[in-house]
Amino acid sequence: MKLSCTQEKLNQGLSKVSHVVKKDATLPILSNILFETKEGRLKLSATDLEIGVRCNILGKIEKEGTLTLPADIITSYVNSLPESRVNLETTDQILHLKCESFEANIKGLPSKEFPIIPEVKTEPLTKIPTDLFIPSLNQIIFAAAQEESRPEISGVSFNFKKNLLVLAATDSYRLAEKRVKLESEVKGGKSIIIPIRTAQELVRILSEEVGDVLVSVSENQILFHFNEVDMTSRLIEGQYPKYQEIIPHEFKTRVVLDTNLFLDTIKTVSLFSREAASDIKMELDPSKEEITISAETSQVGKSESKIKTKIEGEKNSINFNYRYVLEGLSVITSPQVIFEMTTDSAPAVLKPADSKDYIYIVMPIKQ
Amino acid sequence: MKLSCTQEKLNQGLSKVSHVVKKDATLPILSNILFETKEGRLKLSATDLEIGVRCNILGKIEKEGTLTLPADIITSYVNSLPESRVNLETTDQILHLKCESFEANIKGLPSKEFPIIPEVKTEPLTKIPTDLFIPSLNQIIFAAAQEESRPEISGVSFNFKKNLLVLAATDSYRLAEKRVKLESEVKGGKSIIIPIRTAQELVRILSEEVGDVLVSVSENQILFHFNEVDMTSRLIEGQYPKYQEIIPHEFKTRVVLDTNLFLDTIKTVSLFSREAASDIKMELDPSKEEITISAETSQVGKSESKIKTKIEGEKNSINFNYRYVLEGLSVITSPQVIFEMTTDSAPAVLKPADSKDYIYIVMPIKQ
Repeated sequence: MKLSCTQEKLNQGLSKVSHVVKKDATLPILSNILFETKEGRLKLSATDLEIGVRCNILGKIEKEGTLTLPADIITSYVNSLPESRVNLETTDQILHLKCESFEANIKGLPSKEFPIIPEVKTEPLTKIPTDLFIPSLNQIIFAAAQEESRPEISGVSFNFKKNLLVLAATDSYRLAEKRVKLESEVKGGKSIIIPIRTAQELVRILSEEVGDVLVSVSENQILFHFNEVDMTSRLIEGQYPKYQEIIPHEFKTRVVLDTNLFLDTIKTVSLFSREAASDIKMELDPSKEEITISAETSQVGKSESKIKTKIEGEKNSINFNYRYVLEGLSVITSPQVIFEMTTDSAPAVLKPADSKDYIYIVMPIKQ
Repeated sequence: MKLSCTQEKLNQGLSKVSHVVKKDATLPILSNILFETKEGRLKLSATDLEIGVRCNILGKIEKEGTLTLPADIITSYVNSLPESRVNLETTDQILHLKCESFEANIKGLPSKEFPIIPEVKTEPLTKIPTDLFIPSLNQIIFAAAQEESRPEISGVSFNFKKNLLVLAATDSYRLAEKRVKLESEVKGGKSIIIPIRTAQELVRILSEEVGDVLVSVSENQILFHFNEVDMTSRLIEGQYPKYQEIIPHEFKTRVVLDTNLFLDTIKTVSLFSREAASDIKMELDPSKEEITISAETSQVGKSESKIKTKIEGEKNSINFNYRYVLEGLSVITSPQVIFEMTTDSAPAVLKPADSKDYIYIVMPIKQ
């Protein structure tokens, strides 16, 4: 293999693929990135056997070839090189790299040991612009379960229904759902679960990119294609919980609040909540036109704050894990948020006042 | 105790004193901040028994009194309150705090249990403007020994000699010395050692302040006085090592380098150095007018870079722990740096090209 390319392109490509590489991989080859020349380009590939990321880089190929290189050293070394032309050449299993006054020999491993990243050859289901897709994912990912004891909720639900993609995530204490309008209809629909890490990686790789992401789904894999980047991931088997049943359709008490005021008040009051339970109390009094938010720990003391506002419906109160409420509020970008509840043992609802595309449900802590 | 003050002043005061409080203090009272009203002011005090910090806050005192309050909760709570008037009132050992819509009751401990912070009543030795003192401390602190097996080098040497304050720190692998000119002469001189944490805390508290720091020294305490803030610290007993003897006064090879180029080159090359030894090699060849910096690990590979430059003196080479060189270079603010060495087993010198006030010595790694 012999080629040259710009430091900028090589650096960008490495930063896109290197993040999926596991640092403590048991198989040494899984700590490596595959370098291949193909059709006049340098193709970089990395995988952790669940997710695979590939990125093509424009370069001047003088001699075809292939080698795998340790992700950590090649990524940090190229990142620290000056913005100039980089020359790459391999002899046996060593990469010789030159850039201005810098030279390095990096030991690699033969590419024939590198795992095959599955190909998804089906036609794209749909395309979604990154500036709609990535913020939407960000509004739900955090609600997914972190442990893998229940695999189906340790992922994000992608439900394609006609010209709608419904994204959802839950850890059974709270649930986030986002509806994304598609430009064209997905015939027959499709419902899949992608691992949380795949969704996080997608956000990381595409968060600063502008353009369309093509989404293709095969029997057990999904492919996200964006310009020179391909990301494939296994799908999580099983059925996503029928969460629609727990979304309340009625309420007994309802209030519209300034999102930032609500967020800041909870943050301040919650400093006094018990660390393990993280519980705060919210009391809504329509006759006084006042919400009281409070927290108490026997050792520390008590804090409360009142928000003056019109309240629809009945006098009511509910206890929450404040962290769940804060996480939901912090992804609601509209200036006003709607809070709805029925009883102190039923899930409460947060949603933006200016859009029907997003809903966040929080289970109460029983009093 | 009953008083009111602005959230801004109270927040600033708490942020100045709270940092010395140890989070895992064995004695509960040491996790607290002492609140006292004195001469129309609210006086905050905190100590870890080694360092004591006091700060006075202007306020409207309605009733004198005193109480100690848990540093973590009072500091983070006041920090999150709106910028408005804060009302404080105590009943028994509880502080009632009100600020706009926020109210809290915080449990305290009686102030009679709070340790006495030693007073330094001697006349100030000197005064130093913060914009000279703080950057000077920053140029040496990092070189002090982190472990306390040799107490005298786990501190920073303050040597007052006539109208000069010589600051020095070493961990026996490298040494930093900074000369600070004083406005007036310190009669008889004074040589003391202050704990590294005292120096760090001083930098933290005063790094954004502008004005003069008054320095007073008693038999075993030092006092730094700045506006409404007093910081006292115990001194470290013993004699600071006579480090002047190891500062080389001659050289066999000398070069003047662009500071940033030198720093960036070492950073990039050092990615290939062995993790435990952190060693890089520097070869200086006057006839080729070239410095070669290289690093090698058998597993990873090798990297090198050349810097073209005029070199005074003999052909020479030396091995370093690159971390020590980087730390020294990163506090040298002048665009050009002088590097001097004699042999591969003698300490080498880094100093700014535009000032004689700073010197940094690095011991080599034996080849």
